[in-house]
Amino acid sequence: MEQNLDPALAAGNRQQLADYQARHFKWQAEAGVATITLNRPDRKNPLTFDSYAELRDLFHRLKWAPDVHAVVLAGEGGNFCSGGDVHEIIGPLVRLPAPELLMFTRMTGDLVKAMRACPQPIVAAVDGVCAGAGAILAMASDLRLGTARSKTAFLFNRVGLAGCDMGACAMLPRLIGQGRASELLYTGRALGGEEGERWGFFNRLCAPEDLHAQALQLARDIAAGPTFANGITKTMLHQEWAMTVDQAIEAEAQAQALCMLTGDFKRAYEAFVDKRKPVFEGN
Amino acid sequence: MEQNLDPALAAGNRQQLADYQARHFKWQAEAGVATITLNRPDRKNPLTFDSYAELRDLFHRLKWAPDVHAVVLAGEGGNFCSGGDVHEIIGPLVRLPAPELLMFTRMTGDLVKAMRACPQPIVAAVDGVCAGAGAILAMASDLRLGTARSKTAFLFNRVGLAGCDMGACAMLPRLIGQGRASELLYTGRALGGEEGERWGFFNRLCAPEDLHAQALQLARDIAAGPTFANGITKTMLHQEWAMTVDQAIEAEAQAQALCMLTGDFKRAYEAFVDKRKPVFEGN
Amino acid sequence: MEQNLDPALAAGNRQQLADYQARHFKWQAEAGVATITLNRPDRKNPLTFDSYAELRDLFHRLKWAPDVHAVVLAGEGGNFCSGGDVHEIIGPLVRLPAPELLMFTRMTGDLVKAMRACPQPIVAAVDGVCAGAGAILAMASDLRLGTARSKTAFLFNRVGLAGCDMGACAMLPRLIGQGRASELLYTGRALGGEEGERWGFFNRLCAPEDLHAQALQLARDIAAGPTFANGITKTMLHQEWAMTVDQAIEAEAQAQALCMLTGDFKRAYEAFVDKRKPVFEGN
Repeated sequence: MEQNLDPALAAGNRQQLADYQARHFKWQAEAGVATITLNRPDRKNPLTFDSYAELRDLFHRLKWAPDVHAVVLAGEGGNFCSGGDVHEIIGPLVRLPAPELLMFTRMTGDLVKAMRACPQPIVAAVDGVCAGAGAILAMASDLRLGTARSKTAFLFNRVGLAGCDMGACAMLPRLIGQGRASELLYTGRALGGEEGERWGFFNRLCAPEDLHAQALQLARDIAAGPTFANGITKTMLHQEWAMTVDQAIEAEAQAQALCMLTGDFKRAYEAFVDKRKPVFEGN
Repeated sequence: MEQNLDPALAAGNRQQLADYQARHFKWQAEAGVATITLNRPDRKNPLTFDSYAELRDLFHRLKWAPDVHAVVLAGEGGNFCSGGDVHEIIGPLVRLPAPELLMFTRMTGDLVKAMRACPQPIVAAVDGVCAGAGAILAMASDLRLGTARSKTAFLFNRVGLAGCDMGACAMLPRLIGQGRASELLYTGRALGGEEGERWGFFNRLCAPEDLHAQALQLARDIAAGPTFANGITKTMLHQEWAMTVDQAIEAEAQAQALCMLTGDFKRAYEAFVDKRKPVFEGN
Repeated sequence: MEQNLDPALAAGNRQQLADYQARHFKWQAEAGVATITLNRPDRKNPLTFDSYAELRDLFHRLKWAPDVHAVVLAGEGGNFCSGGDVHEIIGPLVRLPAPELLMFTRMTGDLVKAMRACPQPIVAAVDGVCAGAGAILAMASDLRLGTARSKTAFLFNRVGLAGCDMGACAMLPRLIGQGRASELLYTGRALGGEEGERWGFFNRLCAPEDLHAQALQLARDIAAGPTFANGITKTMLHQEWAMTVDQAIEAEAQAQALCMLTGDFKRAYEAFVDKRKPVFEGN
């Protein structure tokens, strides 16, 4: 799947990430699909200052990685993520002055920005506890598979904070509607799996034992598609968020014309004419 | 729950509203939760020029009221609100010149602006008839409890008008989706309770006899939370309406950093460490 | 239903379209309701360069047509539309240079812009195959009736392209939510009829044999309403897409004040006072 690159361009910018060595979570990559697994299962996979920063940096680097075409985001041990660790994050925060607090909220926000800016669709595999910043990671993914027993809680008001964390007041209403998002943010209550599917938060529910395999399969299916075009889809979903309809249509005309110049478009046409399944190469 | 105020600041701006004497509807306040009850049940609680203006002024004043933390909006006698009174409002309107009409539509629009600008989450308790401007009041609330027998009708086209009344073409699509909102606005048909819950217009349905108690309980639960942070949640849901995702994330980083400097954030952390339920003070 | 016109104004701008002679699809108009039927049923009603251009020009002209008040968009032979013809459109496209490709994507985008800019609500009657640009035509309509057997596929990634086609990344998320739209655009899978109703893509499902009659009836009901006001509803749904709530409320105050100066508003009031059903005249 590796594209032919102009070596000069590649040297300055592009980087292979399949062999990335993660320090604060697990990273596995195979055939263009990378899996990030939060792995402190004894604490339900909380985030720490270190894991936040590493996730942010990794998603920034994914923008330029030619060897990863889709990402699965998961947690170990039957839970997704319990959010910012109370002792390692909230404890220190209550003692910080304003500029340091803003540095922290900007770092967490930058993680979401990086998740939205990388071209790889992100599939969240959500089982068990999915709370606080964990709920945000699920929300900021492109697709979400859940389980009936999953509990997704935007519980910021339970810890004395506002629901406006890492983009929640903008993104959650567009996923589940303004009224339902308001309820979750004002009450902090957990969204159950079936309710989450009914509301469009989850794309579908899986049995807990099948969740990771199904998330991986979905990511593989996407990675087998026209990956350059997939990245453009992701860019435009982000880009058109606050455009008028007419502006969005012009932006899409330009973006789609670019995709029509790719080999993948030609490959799909030729496969159709030959009555065979196309093999995409991501260029 | 009253905060310590700098008396000089408080004198110029802040005002107590718990003891407000309403003239065109009922106002009751207890322990930080105020209930507005439209009370002309013989006519299904229509709005008049006077009640519109008083509601608008009251919601404007709520922006600066430190003693009200959540609002319930309800109607008396098994109906929510039948909208602008045909005889007292529509009759005069058909004879007014353009500048006077604009003054009227701006007044009704200002009521919605004030409902969105005050920091208190508003819970609408919708039973029976909820029509025209009544449907708008429900839509412009933060949360909506309904009943199976409630009938919510954006019936503007039935009276020869457009669906674009008091923000409906902007807000209704974000609550229930663009296609469903279009249907309600082009046909004027009533949305039933169960359909409304399924579409996300209602947060949940209640038995008619439990509706007011449940709305009040929901408002009390919210008022027992971190009310400064709740107000910031409301502000940001409004503020980020037409921002890009990246702009929203930066705006939330600033707003949440501010909330991290409140005592409520510290109270929640200390309660967690002590393994007890936090008691929030709204500052 | 024809309005009294200033002949000078009418001559320069307005045009009757009821008797329009279509070349690349069927056009029938009766009592203010026009039906466009894509009619190459042997190929499941694909679009061609010619039919695209004619549709675009026709919807542009509808902006000024006083004799058409609602439009039904349908396909012949149990299918809605299979999208851009593989041989007549995709074949040529794979050989075109960038400027010509942009000219094509802008033409298809202009069709959607024209569908959104004309004042007539458009009812799509979707049965069977509704794929690619066909799915876009359904999405770009105001209301959608489907059948249980309909299959709506935004299959752009299956042909090597991005999901950003003719406004899909902006419009589809507002119809069905950001997560569900993302799934359809990243996987290209077909949306079934029942799922489509549940997600709010379809306003309702009909038996295939009743579909066209019900779409026509819905369009007739709308055309019997206050058609000037309906057109303003459509304009404002479009216009307020990326406004803030406060901007939208001001825009609606102006637009609704204009509608309050129409005869239809007065007719509705007088009919109410006389206890009869109003007869609207669209002015």
